Amino acid sequence: MHAPETSLPTDLPRTTADILARLRVRAPRVHCITNAVAQNFTANVLLAAGAVPSMTISPEEIGQFVAGADALLVNLGTFDHERREAVEIAVAAASQGGKRWVLDPVFIDRAPKRANFARALMRRQPTALRLNRAEFSALSGDAGNNDALKRYAHDTAAVFALSGKTDLVADATRVAAISNGDALMARVTAMGCAGSALVAACLAVEGDAWRACAAALIILGVAGEIAAAQAKGPGSFAVAIIDAVANLDGEILLERAKVSE
Amino acid sequence: MHAPETSLPTDLPRTTADILARLRVRAPRVHCITNAVAQNFTANVLLAAGAVPSMTISPEEIGQFVAGADALLVNLGTFDHERREAVEIAVAAASQGGKRWVLDPVFIDRAPKRANFARALMRRQPTALRLNRAEFSALSGDAGNNDALKRYAHDTAAVFALSGKTDLVADATRVAAISNGDALMARVTAMGCAGSALVAACLAVEGDAWRACAAALIILGVAGEIAAAQAKGPGSFAVAIIDAVANLDGEILLERAKVSE
Amino acid sequence: MHAPETSLPTDLPRTTADILARLRVRAPRVHCITNAVAQNFTANVLLAAGAVPSMTISPEEIGQFVAGADALLVNLGTFDHERREAVEIAVAAASQGGKRWVLDPVFIDRAPKRANFARALMRRQPTALRLNRAEFSALSGDAGNNDALKRYAHDTAAVFALSGKTDLVADATRVAAISNGDALMARVTAMGCAGSALVAACLAVEGDAWRACAAALIILGVAGEIAAAQAKGPGSFAVAIIDAVANLDGEILLERAKVSE
Repeated sequence: MHAPETSLPTDLPRTTADILARLRVRAPRVHCITNAVAQNFTANVLLAAGAVPSMTISPEEIGQFVAGADALLVNLGTFDHERREAVEIAVAAASQGGKRWVLDPVFIDRAPKRANFARALMRRQPTALRLNRAEFSALSGDAGNNDALKRYAHDTAAVFALSGKTDLVADATRVAAISNGDALMARVTAMGCAGSALVAACLAVEGDAWRACAAALIILGVAGEIAAAQAKGPGSFAVAIIDAVANLDGEILLERAKVSE
Repeated sequence: MHAPETSLPTDLPRTTADILARLRVRAPRVHCITNAVAQNFTANVLLAAGAVPSMTISPEEIGQFVAGADALLVNLGTFDHERREAVEIAVAAASQGGKRWVLDPVFIDRAPKRANFARALMRRQPTALRLNRAEFSALSGDAGNNDALKRYAHDTAAVFALSGKTDLVADATRVAAISNGDALMARVTAMGCAGSALVAACLAVEGDAWRACAAALIILGVAGEIAAAQAKGPGSFAVAIIDAVANLDGEILLERAKVSE
Repeated sequence: MHAPETSLPTDLPRTTADILARLRVRAPRVHCITNAVAQNFTANVLLAAGAVPSMTISPEEIGQFVAGADALLVNLGTFDHERREAVEIAVAAASQGGKRWVLDPVFIDRAPKRANFARALMRRQPTALRLNRAEFSALSGDAGNNDALKRYAHDTAAVFALSGKTDLVADATRVAAISNGDALMARVTAMGCAGSALVAACLAVEGDAWRACAAALIILGVAGEIAAAQAKGPGSFAVAIIDAVANLDGEILLERAKVSE
C-alpha cells in the first residue's frame, strides 16, 4: 500500500507502533481492579497486547500486587465496599511506588455516590481517565468539547481519553482526535473497560502519558476495524478483536491509524 | 419462502417479531443480579437483543440502578450474603417503581436454603420465573405438567417459563409449548441465565407478561438453532448464538418459530 | 493412520481415552472455588469434557454443594476473606465425604500470605495440585526437577501436575512427561485454572490419582494442539479449545498423546 498523498499531521501513529513493540518486549504487569463482567475479556485483551494482567481485589494482598505491577487500573464498574477498600489500598500503593494509574469512572452519570467517589479519587491524581462523554460531564460538570477537556486536564493534571464516535485524548495543551474503531465496539460488554486496561499497559511503557493514552485507543480502534471486517455479529467480533490485537504490528498501525492533533 | 399450508395456531410468532422490533427501538435498561459465571455472557446476549444491561450488586447503589431500569432480573446462581441484601433492595425498588422483575431460582433443587429464599421471594410477586423442571418441583412441590403449571401460576399470579426439550410458558389460563432450540444450549454455561435476562428485557416492552416470556424463549431458541447450524462445538456455539440474536429479524422469527398454545 | 513403529512406552494414552469415555458417561459433578476471571471459561471447559460444574462460594451452602459433588477444585486466584471461608468449609466437607480435591495455588510466588495459606492447606491433604514451576518453588522451597517432585509428592502424599513447556506429573514413585499443548495456551487467561478443574473431573472417575492428573493434562494439551491448528489468535483459540475438548475421542487421544514415563 502506498502512503497517502496527504501525509498525517502527527507522529502519533509512529509512536503507537513503538509503544506496541515495547509492550511485546517488556510485557508490563498491569493490576486491574475491575468488575466481574469485564475481568475475563480485559485479561485476554491485555494478554493479546503483550501485557500481564493480575486481578485480585483482596485488601490483604492488593498492595503487594500493585507494588509488583507496572501500572494500575481502577474501574468503578462494580462499586461495593470490598472494591472501594481495594481501591484505597491500591491507589496508596501506586502513589508510594510512583506507579501510574488509570481511572475508569463507569456509569457515574447514573450513580451519584459513585460520582462522589470518583471526584474524591481525582484528588489522588490519576495519571489518566478513560470515560465517555456522559461520564465526563458527571465528573467535571462540563460538556466535553476540546477546550473544556484541556481546561479540566490542566486543573487535574490528568490526561483524558474520551471515547465516542471520534475519540478525543487531551492533556492541558494537546488534543488528539482518533477516528478509528467500529460501531460493533459499543455492542460488546466490557470493551471500554478493556480499553482502559490497555491505557494502563501503554502508560507502563511510554513516559508521555498523552501519547500512551492515544496509542491505547488507536491500538483498540484499529483492532476493532480489522475484527469488524471478519465478524458476523457482536459475538464473533469480541473474539476477533482479541485476535486482531494479538496480530497487530507497527506496519498495520501506520497504515490504518486515523488520528489528528 | 411461502407460508406453510398448515398455518400456525397462534399469533405468538407475530408477537415475538413485534417484541424484537420494540427491543431494538426502545433499548430497555435491564438490571441484572446474577452470578459471576453468567455476567459477561448475559450482558452480551442482552446487548445483542437491543437491551442495555447493568449489573452492579452494591447495596448502596442497586436501588438507584433499578429505579432507572425498565426491568429487573434476580438470578439466585450465587447465593451469598451480599447478593441476598442486593436482592432485597432491588425487589423493593422494583415494587415501588412498578417495575417488572424475573426470578431465576438456579439450583434450588440442590440447595434447601436457596429454595427457602426463593419461596420467600414468591411473596414479593415476581412477574415471571424462568426455571427448569427440577427447580419448578423444588419450588412448587409439584411435577410441572400443564395443569400444575397453570394452577401454580394462578396461585402466585406469576408467569412460568419452564425450559426443557420443549419449553412451556404458562400463566393461569394459557400454556404455550415452544420446540425451538438445540441440544448445544445445555452444553454452554449461563445459557439459562441469559434466557432469564431476555425474559426481563421482553417484559420491559410487552404488557402481556405471558407473551413476553414466550417471545424471549422463542428468540433464544431460534437463535440457538441458527447458531448450531454454524458451530463446531459448544465454544463456537456460545459465540454464534450472540451473533444470531443480534442478526435476528421478524422474518426469520416468523419462518422458524415452532410454538403452539 | 498407522500405529507408529516406536510404540509408546506407557499405557497413559489408553488410560486417558478410558477416562475421557468415563467422563462422558458418568458426568461427574465438580464443585469449583475459583476466581471470577476464570469461572465462565472453567465451567465451559468442564461442560465440554462431560462434567457438570457448580461454582457457588457462599459459606451457607458450599458444604452442601461439595457433599453432592464428585470432586472439588480449590483455586486461590482470588484470595479474599469470603473465598478463604468457603475453602475451609469446602475442604472439610470433602474430607468428611471422602471426596478428592485439587489445589491450584495461583500466584503464590507473588503473594506471601497466599503462599502461607497454601502451605496450611497442604496439611489438609489435597489429592493433587496443578501449578507452574514458580508456584511449586514457592510452595516447596525446591526447584521442581523430577527428584524434587517425587520427594515432595512422597512427603505430602499428593500428586503434582506441573505445567510448563513439558508438563510433569509426579507422585512418590512415578513421573510422566507430557509434551502436548501449544504456546497459545499461555496467551489465554484461565487456561491453567481450567486445567485444574479438568484434573478434578478426572479424579472423580479414575482411582489412580496420578493417572487422572496425567489424563487431564493430555486431554487439554491435545485439545490445545487441535485448537491452535484452527485459531487465528488467542481469541479464536479460547473458543476452539472448548470445541476441541467437546469433540475429542479416544482415537484422537491415542494418535496424538505425547507422553513418556
